[in-house]
Amino acid sequence: MTGFRIPLVGIIGPGRCGPELETLAYQAGRLLAEHNLGIVCGGLEGVMGAACKGAIEADGWTVGILPGSDAGDANPFVRIAIPTGLGQSRNAIVVRAAAAVLALGGGFGTLSEIALALRWGIPVFGVKTWVPVDGEGQPAPIHECSSVQVAVSAIVDALVDQSTPGG
Amino acid sequence: MTGFRIPLVGIIGPGRCGPELETLAYQAGRLLAEHNLGIVCGGLEGVMGAACKGAIEADGWTVGILPGSDAGDANPFVRIAIPTGLGQSRNAIVVRAAAAVLALGGGFGTLSEIALALRWGIPVFGVKTWVPVDGEGQPAPIHECSSVQVAVSAIVDALVDQSTPGG
Amino acid sequence: MTGFRIPLVGIIGPGRCGPELETLAYQAGRLLAEHNLGIVCGGLEGVMGAACKGAIEADGWTVGILPGSDAGDANPFVRIAIPTGLGQSRNAIVVRAAAAVLALGGGFGTLSEIALALRWGIPVFGVKTWVPVDGEGQPAPIHECSSVQVAVSAIVDALVDQSTPGG
Amino acid sequence: MTGFRIPLVGIIGPGRCGPELETLAYQAGRLLAEHNLGIVCGGLEGVMGAACKGAIEADGWTVGILPGSDAGDANPFVRIAIPTGLGQSRNAIVVRAAAAVLALGGGFGTLSEIALALRWGIPVFGVKTWVPVDGEGQPAPIHECSSVQVAVSAIVDALVDQSTPGG
Repeated sequence: MTGFRIPLVGIIGPGRCGPELETLAYQAGRLLAEHNLGIVCGGLEGVMGAACKGAIEADGWTVGILPGSDAGDANPFVRIAIPTGLGQSRNAIVVRAAAAVLALGGGFGTLSEIALALRWGIPVFGVKTWVPVDGEGQPAPIHECSSVQVAVSAIVDALVDQSTPGG
Repeated sequence: MTGFRIPLVGIIGPGRCGPELETLAYQAGRLLAEHNLGIVCGGLEGVMGAACKGAIEADGWTVGILPGSDAGDANPFVRIAIPTGLGQSRNAIVVRAAAAVLALGGGFGTLSEIALALRWGIPVFGVKTWVPVDGEGQPAPIHECSSVQVAVSAIVDALVDQSTPGG
Repeated sequence: MTGFRIPLVGIIGPGRCGPELETLAYQAGRLLAEHNLGIVCGGLEGVMGAACKGAIEADGWTVGILPGSDAGDANPFVRIAIPTGLGQSRNAIVVRAAAAVLALGGGFGTLSEIALALRWGIPVFGVKTWVPVDGEGQPAPIHECSSVQVAVSAIVDALVDQSTPGG
Repeated sequence: MTGFRIPLVGIIGPGRCGPELETLAYQAGRLLAEHNLGIVCGGLEGVMGAACKGAIEADGWTVGILPGSDAGDANPFVRIAIPTGLGQSRNAIVVRAAAAVLALGGGFGTLSEIALALRWGIPVFGVKTWVPVDGEGQPAPIHECSSVQVAVSAIVDALVDQSTPGG
């Protein structure tokens, strides 16, 4: 039953954003779908909405983990809507459900998701996103990428490595 | 885009069970899938595993909200695995994600899910499950059904009513 | 440092209730405080508010695990307010934090807390509360008590047994 | 009933740390207690344990929001232990319960707590902690302090401002 479970990549980023970030998110959703990777996100608008639109238009899968209690809050490109009623604490679930995380831009909510992914050993890729530097001057191990194309390609490689014994 | 979002019915019941309950769960998953309804459950074995098997064999959709941190804990018939790391507290999310809940048998975890569904106004249907009676002798409004067929038919009717304005 | 950590008993019950239940809750808070037991509850009004008032008037300790995000939502007799932003899902934390649970009356939220306590092996005592009967006709192991005095006395005995090696 | 509710300051930092950070944490707990401020933390060792020790030795109040299910996991200086069973997701509750947050050193879990505090408008003070810089080169608004003394003094000022109408 190989290929049966849908592998999920987390897309994290602000719920409101300008057209540049929206374009990046749309491309990311589209490219991930073309690689047969589903996306999991917070289910709302902005980066989340654009990524879901891109994924759906490439016949991909989209899961939205919503902060509120109503599935109707999800953007129209979410196929599986999971309302949680947990508010911003649902961020932890978005991250846990992802085999890798792609951060696009981002506010403080996105930063919390990056941090949890790092805490749990989930690889983090980013375009135009946070660079956290710790108290000893060390930057956090985020894979900064120059474009969404580079990021998706790196994510695909990382997931192949994860699933290949001895890979 | 009608019919785009996958409507989810929660299947709740014990993670270990005998063959009778497993058969009921398998039938429930199968019948729901035949009505184009996805299922959301706790993602483990027992009632959850049998329901997922039934759904998949009828070409349905299965979402597992897992207590642990590893998507690999899901039963093999879960297509969308959402590990939460929340332990038994993930029960609340299973319920929140469901438009209606079907309880089959059940231990205390199932009872907690029934109670949350009632608290949130999500309709609860049950076969061979709990009957909670309150301090004034009133039973909780669980729709007890004589068979899985009766239950699924009632769930389908309930969801049509929910989605029909003035219905 | 014996007696340093404050042992907590969960008081669960509706956020709105009549004077009879309020009196029971007030007595429960008071009696538990007189036995040097703190209380943990959902932090709002009704049974929760009356229990906190009773505890405080007997110089006891009160912890409120709130559904919302604002400590200011707590009733005025909560000394330690823990806003969670988790909505009704905070019920699980109220129960986890308790060495034993006392249910007074109760709606569906209370039933969910009773069920989680039973799931986790936390002893449940009740006055005028739910009697859940499972699919095989077996009632859940709730210690039904004829009065708050009887219940508190049983809780004190249960906690002594828990903390006495070989007790 | 002014002064009745115990105001809580969040202390966040690693669960294992060297003696330098431990000394800072001990001082922080002690100074906060001398200002009649309780502390809320993750309840384990390292920064959390040292801060609780400092607070208790100055007759302060300590609340531990634990990742696991057992109150016995708390460090011995926690007076109110709240086991949650939520794993690292309990970080969100530590932050929510705090009127201000003090970060001392810190790994990725600490970074997630800083981010959530910023997201929720809870003021963040730090000594030797993270400096996150966003995609546009702007640092996050963390109040970096040269010492614990400076930080506690700034926290006390911030809380007075919060509670003074027109302040």
